[in-house]
Amino acid sequence: MEDVQNRLDQRGIEIQRVGVKGVHLPFLIATRDGGYQQILGKITAAVNLPEQYKGTHLSRFMEVLVAWGDKPISGRELKLMLAELKTKLKASAAELSLDFRYFMPVTAPVSGLSSPLDFSCQFWGRLTDSGYDFRLTVHVPVVSLCPCSKAISRYGAHNQRAVIRASVRCRPGTYLWIEDLILLLREQGSSCVYPVLKREDEKYVTEEAYDHPKFVEDILRDSVLALRREPKVSWFRLEVESFESIHNHSAFAYHEEETASL
Amino acid sequence: MEDVQNRLDQRGIEIQRVGVKGVHLPFLIATRDGGYQQILGKITAAVNLPEQYKGTHLSRFMEVLVAWGDKPISGRELKLMLAELKTKLKASAAELSLDFRYFMPVTAPVSGLSSPLDFSCQFWGRLTDSGYDFRLTVHVPVVSLCPCSKAISRYGAHNQRAVIRASVRCRPGTYLWIEDLILLLREQGSSCVYPVLKREDEKYVTEEAYDHPKFVEDILRDSVLALRREPKVSWFRLEVESFESIHNHSAFAYHEEETASL
Amino acid sequence: MEDVQNRLDQRGIEIQRVGVKGVHLPFLIATRDGGYQQILGKITAAVNLPEQYKGTHLSRFMEVLVAWGDKPISGRELKLMLAELKTKLKASAAELSLDFRYFMPVTAPVSGLSSPLDFSCQFWGRLTDSGYDFRLTVHVPVVSLCPCSKAISRYGAHNQRAVIRASVRCRPGTYLWIEDLILLLREQGSSCVYPVLKREDEKYVTEEAYDHPKFVEDILRDSVLALRREPKVSWFRLEVESFESIHNHSAFAYHEEETASL
Amino acid sequence: MEDVQNRLDQRGIEIQRVGVKGVHLPFLIATRDGGYQQILGKITAAVNLPEQYKGTHLSRFMEVLVAWGDKPISGRELKLMLAELKTKLKASAAELSLDFRYFMPVTAPVSGLSSPLDFSCQFWGRLTDSGYDFRLTVHVPVVSLCPCSKAISRYGAHNQRAVIRASVRCRPGTYLWIEDLILLLREQGSSCVYPVLKREDEKYVTEEAYDHPKFVEDILRDSVLALRREPKVSWFRLEVESFESIHNHSAFAYHEEETASL
Repeated sequence: MEDVQNRLDQRGIEIQRVGVKGVHLPFLIATRDGGYQQILGKITAAVNLPEQYKGTHLSRFMEVLVAWGDKPISGRELKLMLAELKTKLKASAAELSLDFRYFMPVTAPVSGLSSPLDFSCQFWGRLTDSGYDFRLTVHVPVVSLCPCSKAISRYGAHNQRAVIRASVRCRPGTYLWIEDLILLLREQGSSCVYPVLKREDEKYVTEEAYDHPKFVEDILRDSVLALRREPKVSWFRLEVESFESIHNHSAFAYHEEETASL
Repeated sequence: MEDVQNRLDQRGIEIQRVGVKGVHLPFLIATRDGGYQQILGKITAAVNLPEQYKGTHLSRFMEVLVAWGDKPISGRELKLMLAELKTKLKASAAELSLDFRYFMPVTAPVSGLSSPLDFSCQFWGRLTDSGYDFRLTVHVPVVSLCPCSKAISRYGAHNQRAVIRASVRCRPGTYLWIEDLILLLREQGSSCVYPVLKREDEKYVTEEAYDHPKFVEDILRDSVLALRREPKVSWFRLEVESFESIHNHSAFAYHEEETASL
Repeated sequence: MEDVQNRLDQRGIEIQRVGVKGVHLPFLIATRDGGYQQILGKITAAVNLPEQYKGTHLSRFMEVLVAWGDKPISGRELKLMLAELKTKLKASAAELSLDFRYFMPVTAPVSGLSSPLDFSCQFWGRLTDSGYDFRLTVHVPVVSLCPCSKAISRYGAHNQRAVIRASVRCRPGTYLWIEDLILLLREQGSSCVYPVLKREDEKYVTEEAYDHPKFVEDILRDSVLALRREPKVSWFRLEVESFESIHNHSAFAYHEEETASL
Repeated sequence: MEDVQNRLDQRGIEIQRVGVKGVHLPFLIATRDGGYQQILGKITAAVNLPEQYKGTHLSRFMEVLVAWGDKPISGRELKLMLAELKTKLKASAAELSLDFRYFMPVTAPVSGLSSPLDFSCQFWGRLTDSGYDFRLTVHVPVVSLCPCSKAISRYGAHNQRAVIRASVRCRPGTYLWIEDLILLLREQGSSCVYPVLKREDEKYVTEEAYDHPKFVEDILRDSVLALRREPKVSWFRLEVESFESIHNHSAFAYHEEETASL
C-alpha cells in the first residue's frame, strides 16, 4: 500500500508545525507531594515537516499520546514525550500543549472545612535540537473588589469573580509545581474563592474583600511582585480579568517580563 | 439526475424534525418603534418528514432563510417564514429558532449618558396544521447582591453579575416586544448594569445594589410577579443565574408557569 | 448569626428549582464490568423551595457533591445522591445533571489496534415524593456519507463527522450501561470513527463509508430501530447532527418517542 | 469625588496593557467596493499604564468605542480609534482587537445561485509613539479530501470541512481588503464550501474535491504560495485545521513567515 505521506514534495516549504488538535485523553499529572492526579486532557501536538515530504503520519501522534496515559507527567516527562514524538516522526522539533482542570483542596477561613477547588491549567513544551522550552499556565479564580466604588460610595462596593491567568518559565534545573504557582497567586485578589463556605466563612470573606479593595491593575501588580520574588521563575506572562458586576463586559490587565537573575 | 431524497423509504418512521443547524445569517428585527435593527442570526430550522420519503431537501431551507434577510422580523413574520418552509418542503410542521444579540440604549442613572447594552435573545416558532406557537426569549444582565452576606458582615456584601433568562408566550392577538420584556425584567436585580458609568453613576449603582440585596431566589420571585402582572403573557419560563464572586460556580433558580387569565 | 435564608417569604411563590450550576468536580462512574472510571464532572443540582422560605442553603449542595467524589456512580447511586439532597435541604424534589467525557476502547477494523475514544455523556435524575426519573445521554461520533452525492457523482461522495446524541429512559428494574448504549449506536453511521487508524484501517473505513451512504435521516431512522429493539428502553430522544463538509453549517434530524412495551 | 485611579502608585510597575474585554457592539466595516457592512463586534481594547498611576479610566474606553459605531472601519480608521484611545487615556500605546463575522456572496458552481457565506474575521491594531501595526485575520472554510485515503481505497475518499485561518500584515502604503484575502485562500482547499447548492452543484463539488485531494499540509503549502505571490503581504501566519471525519479530533498545520520584498 502506497505511503502517500512519503511522496516527494516539490513546493520547497518546510512546515513549522503539523499534527493533531482537539484530542481528548485521560492523563496523570505528577503532584508536588510525589503522587499524581488523574485529569481529562485536551491536547495539541505537532512536529515540523521537512520540505521534501508531502505529509506527516498522524496515527503515530495518537500512539505516542495514548501510551503516555498511565505515567505521571510533569515538565520532565513532557520532555520525554516530545523526544518520543521527535523520534517516531523523524522530526527536528516537537511541540505539545496539554490543557486540563486540576483540583487542589482549599480550606474555608473560619470553619476550616476543606473542599476541592478547580483550576484550569496548561503544560506547554517545545523540544528542538537546540533545547527544551517548558511553560506552566494556571488560572486562579479570586474576588476583586473595586477601590473606586468603595471610596466614593457611602456603603458597599461592587465586587465580582476575577481570574489571574499566569504562565511561567523556570530557570534551568528548577521546577515550579502547579501547587506552588497557585499558592503564590491565590492571595493576590481582594479575597480567595472557595467551593464550600459556611455562614461564618462568608462573613470573613465579605469583610476580607472589603478590607482589600483592588483594581485589576492592583491584582496584576501584586502578582508581578510575587512572581519576581520567586527565584525559580525566569519569565512570566500575567493576565487578570475581572467579570465586572456593574457592566456586561470585563476589565483586564496584562503584563509579561523576563525576570532579572537574583 | 436522480432525486435520491425522494426515494421511497421502507422503515415506516415519520421523522419529527429534519433541517439545518448552525446557520449564520444577517437579519432585521422589527423594533417596537416601527423601525428595525440589523442583527447577526444563528438559526436552526426544521420540518417534519413523512415516513415514505428518504430525505428532505436542505438547499430549500437556505433559499427561504436567505430570502428573508431584508424584511424586518417579529413574531408575525416568523409565522410567514414557517408557512413558506412548510410549503416549499411539503411538510405539515415547521419549526425555527433564531438566536441573536440585540442592543437597546440604557441611560446611566446620574450622568444621564446613554450607551447601547447587548441582550442575547431568541425567537422560536412552530407552525403546524393545528396552529402557531411563538416564544420570545431574552437574557437580561443585572447585579445581584447577597442579603446573607450583607446581614452577617460588619461592612460590605459580596455581589456579582447575574443574568435573568426569560422565555414568554403571549395570549392570542397580543405581542410583547423585546424592549417591553427587557424593561419588565431589568429592574428585578439588586441593580441594573450599564456599558458606560461615570464616577457619580458608579456611586449610585453601588449604593443601589447595597440597598436592594437579593438572592437568586428573590430576583426570580420578583420576576415571576412582574410577568404575572403583564396581561399579555400566558406562559413563562425563568432562570436566574448568579456568577458568585466568592465561588468558582454559579447559584441559580428556575420557575415555569402558565399564568391565569385575568 | 442570622439565618437569612430562613426568613419568612411573603410572595407566596414556591420555586421549582434552586441550586448550583457550573460546578466542576471529579467523580467515579460505575462501569458495566463492575469497575469504575474517573471522570471530570460538570454539575447542575437543584431542589424545590417552599413558598415560606426566602432562600436555600447552597453550601449543603457542595458538601453533598464533594462527599460523593469517591463512590462509583450509576443511575442507582444518583438516586441516593438525590435522596441525600432532598433530606439535607428539607425539599420534596431534587434534580441533578452530571456531564462528563467518558472513554471506551475501540478496535481499529484491520490492524486490531485498540485506543480509547471519548464520548460526551450525561446522567440526569429527578427524585420527588412520587418517584424517581433517570435519563442517560451519550454523544456518539460517526461518519456520515451523503447518498445523494454518491448517486449523482461520477466518483467520490462528500462525507463528514456526525454525532448521534441519544437520551434514554429504561423500564423499571432495568439499567442500560453507557457501554451498551454506545455499542447500540456506534454502528448506525456510514462508518465508525477511531482515534488510531493505520493505513489498512483507513482503506477499510473509507470503503465502508462509501458502501453505506446515509443521510442524517437514515442514521436517525436506523438509530430509532436499534433503540426500539432494545427491550430495556422505554423512552428515547435522538438527534443526529452532520457537520456538512460542503457547507459552513450542519444538517440535523430529531426524533423522540415512548416505545411500546413488548 | 476622589479620582482613585489617579492615586500615586508606589510599586514601580508600568503595566503593558489595561482595558476592557468581551465588549459587544455593532460596527460598520468598510468594504472593498467603497460601501460598508454592519457587523456584530466583540472587542478587546487596552492602553499602557505608567507606573505612577494606580488605575486607568475604563469608562473612557467605552465612550470611544460607542462613538465609532456609525463610521465605516478599515485598517486606517482603526488607527484613528487607537489614536483617540491614546489621547483620551493619556497613554503612549493603545491596542485593539475587533472580532466579527463577515458575509460575502458566493456563487454555486453550476446553478450560479448566489448566497452569503460567513467568515470569522479579526482586525487587530497597535499604535505606539514609534508606529502603527495592523493585522487582518480571516477564517476561510473549505473542503479537505484525504490523498492517502483516495490513493489506497478502491473507491471513495474521506473528506471533511476544514478551515484556513490566515493573519496578514501589509507593506507600508498598501491595504489588503477582507474580500481580497478570502478570494486568495478560498481556492486552496480540495473544494470551496457554499451555503446553497442544488443537485448539479453538489455533483460538481463532490467531483472537484475528489479531483483535488489535499492533506492539511497541502492546503497550507498552497496557501503559503498564494500569500507569497501577493505583493502587498509582508508577513503572514497560517493555520489549517481539518475536522477529520474518521476521527473525533482534528489534523492541523501551521506556518508563519516574513515574506521577502519582491
